[in-house]
Amino acid sequence: MYYHVNGELVDSSNASVSVRDRGFMYGDAAFETLRAYGGSIFEWEAHLARLKRTCETLAMPDAVPGDLANRVEETLAANDLEDAYVRVSVTRGEQPGKLTPHPTVEPTIVVIVASLPRGGLDGRSIWDEPAVLRTVKTRRIPDEALPADIKTHNYLNGILARLELRRTQRGDTIADEALIRDLNGYITEGTTSNVFFITDGTLCTPSLDASILPGITRSVVLSLAQKVNIPVETDHYRIEDIHAANEVFLTNTTWELRPVTTLDGIEIETGAMTDRLIRLFNQRIEQFY
Amino acid sequence: MYYHVNGELVDSSNASVSVRDRGFMYGDAAFETLRAYGGSIFEWEAHLARLKRTCETLAMPDAVPGDLANRVEETLAANDLEDAYVRVSVTRGEQPGKLTPHPTVEPTIVVIVASLPRGGLDGRSIWDEPAVLRTVKTRRIPDEALPADIKTHNYLNGILARLELRRTQRGDTIADEALIRDLNGYITEGTTSNVFFITDGTLCTPSLDASILPGITRSVVLSLAQKVNIPVETDHYRIEDIHAANEVFLTNTTWELRPVTTLDGIEIETGAMTDRLIRLFNQRIEQFY
Repeated sequence: MYYHVNGELVDSSNASVSVRDRGFMYGDAAFETLRAYGGSIFEWEAHLARLKRTCETLAMPDAVPGDLANRVEETLAANDLEDAYVRVSVTRGEQPGKLTPHPTVEPTIVVIVASLPRGGLDGRSIWDEPAVLRTVKTRRIPDEALPADIKTHNYLNGILARLELRRTQRGDTIADEALIRDLNGYITEGTTSNVFFITDGTLCTPSLDASILPGITRSVVLSLAQKVNIPVETDHYRIEDIHAANEVFLTNTTWELRPVTTLDGIEIETGAMTDRLIRLFNQRIEQFY
Repeated sequence: MYYHVNGELVDSSNASVSVRDRGFMYGDAAFETLRAYGGSIFEWEAHLARLKRTCETLAMPDAVPGDLANRVEETLAANDLEDAYVRVSVTRGEQPGKLTPHPTVEPTIVVIVASLPRGGLDGRSIWDEPAVLRTVKTRRIPDEALPADIKTHNYLNGILARLELRRTQRGDTIADEALIRDLNGYITEGTTSNVFFITDGTLCTPSLDASILPGITRSVVLSLAQKVNIPVETDHYRIEDIHAANEVFLTNTTWELRPVTTLDGIEIETGAMTDRLIRLFNQRIEQFY
């Protein structure tokens, strides 16, 4: 497998960053998880815009290289991959001594890929089963401390949430995803996914001001629903709201739409609206083949 | 310069970690900043205990290698260093796919060193000037989201705080350190330091339940003060409390005690009690020579 590190294709076993890289020392880096279908990146412009916005918030507005799309393409081509997981990282690179970042940034750019099954109507999901979702004690970091709308290498909040799901020394878990609330008890998102639920025919999901990452798949699902006139509501919700829902599903770039069968021990039917949205999503993906 | 990576001394220019290391991908790692005086690590046991506690919170209780002290010694010896900055990192290493950590951990262990001036009564501080300190808008991450008492590679909260101090494109700053409050407005700490102030002869510092890192130097200073019967108070404080103080200083492993001359534009005298505590601290360090 080949990865792309600082403009060079390198064998994955040699793909490394300096121990002085701020991406390693401090998690001082932005990233995106992308998915390629039939050789093309899904929603490239949206991912690129979010990556740039993260870098702007981190005060390295010019860190995203102009040829990033080429680097991704080269990495896919070197590995002969058409359907793939892609992770792009942009770090602040190495800087002398201080914690305070220097404005002159020589970023470290890393592209990692892995093979995925074909998507679309003729494809199959990367998950074997619908998800078991569980509300955890760990709360989302508030925006006053670290904005939720940036995607960075500081992922311990989500990792601590996932650790709450670990049951055995063998690594078995009591759930596939952790549902995280904010400090006031409102639902935000999963550790790597946005959450949707359907109540009385309305598709509901926490709004963008609910301390969530503005998920690209979330946005695609909302626009697909609106296009076929499914009623949509974005708001602030409590656990009781989602516990009372008829259907629940999660979204992210690799999972796409993943139905939830159990939430906090409550069994939920995989319903007709989730199925319909999955079909609409797969139809959209099918255009890549 | 030589660093120590996974049991091997390597030239610093080749010291690297895999791009798949969770320390890089997620900041999923613990670290300590140590200081060597005359070839010995100051407060080794306290640093080791905190490193282990961080690893326990991250659910990798056995990640700290038994020979860590040897690795640090070897790195100092290889570089012929007696007075040095030392950074030890323990990451969760590489693990397959998922965000949820697997219990079987093959940690990545990194030791970085840099030369420092001699410490103690005959030494000199690593800072040229007393500190300018400034309260920032960025708030400390609450314990419900990420415990403040662990020291990890998730350092963007502090970096965003430091970025508020940046004034010019050349990287000039309006202050040396950012004073961070919690969500309720109480003083916590600086981004890399604990804060002390003296009011009416009493040495005051935020208590351990005030969302702070339990600083090793903080603890040494408190015990030195108690030994010479300086009245000590640990509590929850507001900005008004520290603005009204007679003396203010910061502590961390490399700065040791660093007086504050300006806080939020208010000039503060470097006073007799700070001087006395610096002298007591230097006397203690002198025992290493």
